[in-house]
Amino acid sequence: MTGIDGDGPGIGVDDAGLDDRARRLGAALAAHGWLVSAAESCTGGWIGKVLTDIPGSSAWFERGFIVYGNAAKRDLLGVPAATLEADGAVSEATAAAMVRGVLTVSDAALAVAVTGVAGPDGGTPERPVGTVWFAWGRRGGGVQCRCHRFDGDREAVRRQSVAVALDGLIEATGA
Amino acid sequence: MTGIDGDGPGIGVDDAGLDDRARRLGAALAAHGWLVSAAESCTGGWIGKVLTDIPGSSAWFERGFIVYGNAAKRDLLGVPAATLEADGAVSEATAAAMVRGVLTVSDAALAVAVTGVAGPDGGTPERPVGTVWFAWGRRGGGVQCRCHRFDGDREAVRRQSVAVALDGLIEATGA
Repeated sequence: MTGIDGDGPGIGVDDAGLDDRARRLGAALAAHGWLVSAAESCTGGWIGKVLTDIPGSSAWFERGFIVYGNAAKRDLLGVPAATLEADGAVSEATAAAMVRGVLTVSDAALAVAVTGVAGPDGGTPERPVGTVWFAWGRRGGGVQCRCHRFDGDREAVRRQSVAVALDGLIEATGA
Repeated sequence: MTGIDGDGPGIGVDDAGLDDRARRLGAALAAHGWLVSAAESCTGGWIGKVLTDIPGSSAWFERGFIVYGNAAKRDLLGVPAATLEADGAVSEATAAAMVRGVLTVSDAALAVAVTGVAGPDGGTPERPVGTVWFAWGRRGGGVQCRCHRFDGDREAVRRQSVAVALDGLIEATGA
């Protein structure tokens, strides 16, 4: 599924809401015996932080990739330079390549990639501040991408990005 | 310098204190034209999160490594399996190998590695919950390691770890 979805992640993106998502995701991953991983550009480690807030998270989280720059996306996840040049870092093609890269360089059964414009700088008419591309991937399965345009400041954009990333992971577990 | 330092990071480890450290570090890095990177085990991405909270952080932060499991420490940073087996994941030798690995797989001028027992599980008589090893490294320079034994719960141990990691980076910039 690919599309532009202007909605936010819905209710509960405060710290307690993120923590609740991480706990539900962890329980579902543990039930499946799955590892999860993440490639984080604009969230910069926040997904890893909320996952590892949960005691016992080492049962289902083992590594994550903070790929803030383009070189990091290339070096660590194998995102093609041609994709970054042609489509840009904030694009469906880059998000999809990031999540495929995570599945290649980890044993994760499930992965998410997040790349967006958190602001306050970096926005363009085509990709204004708040534009965030997500990709979710399952080992041996397909990749789903979605774009959100979040309202709010840098903190709000990043916080909603973490929530949407986790919501998609939870959905992918079938929980 | 290597030693056991039982003290915490001092005052100001709330969110505002972490944000203040990240801003001071960013300003010092920008003045030097340096990139910084981090290898995070027990902090799980929190250092990356607070660094990328800062607008414009892409000028001095480009990639980070969430190496929660031993396989991640080996695969992503080249920490020798023999070190992990002989010294354990929470040790001076592992922290030092982690930070050397970061300097190898990034262009960072300055790096930090953090590996510890955040709890509530995983403590041993030798390495109780709250034991955290840090290593700071400069490109072309030496590596400094230090062990802290933090009081408090998982959140408190992780939060103090982020603060100490940032304090050491700030000190290494000469700021």
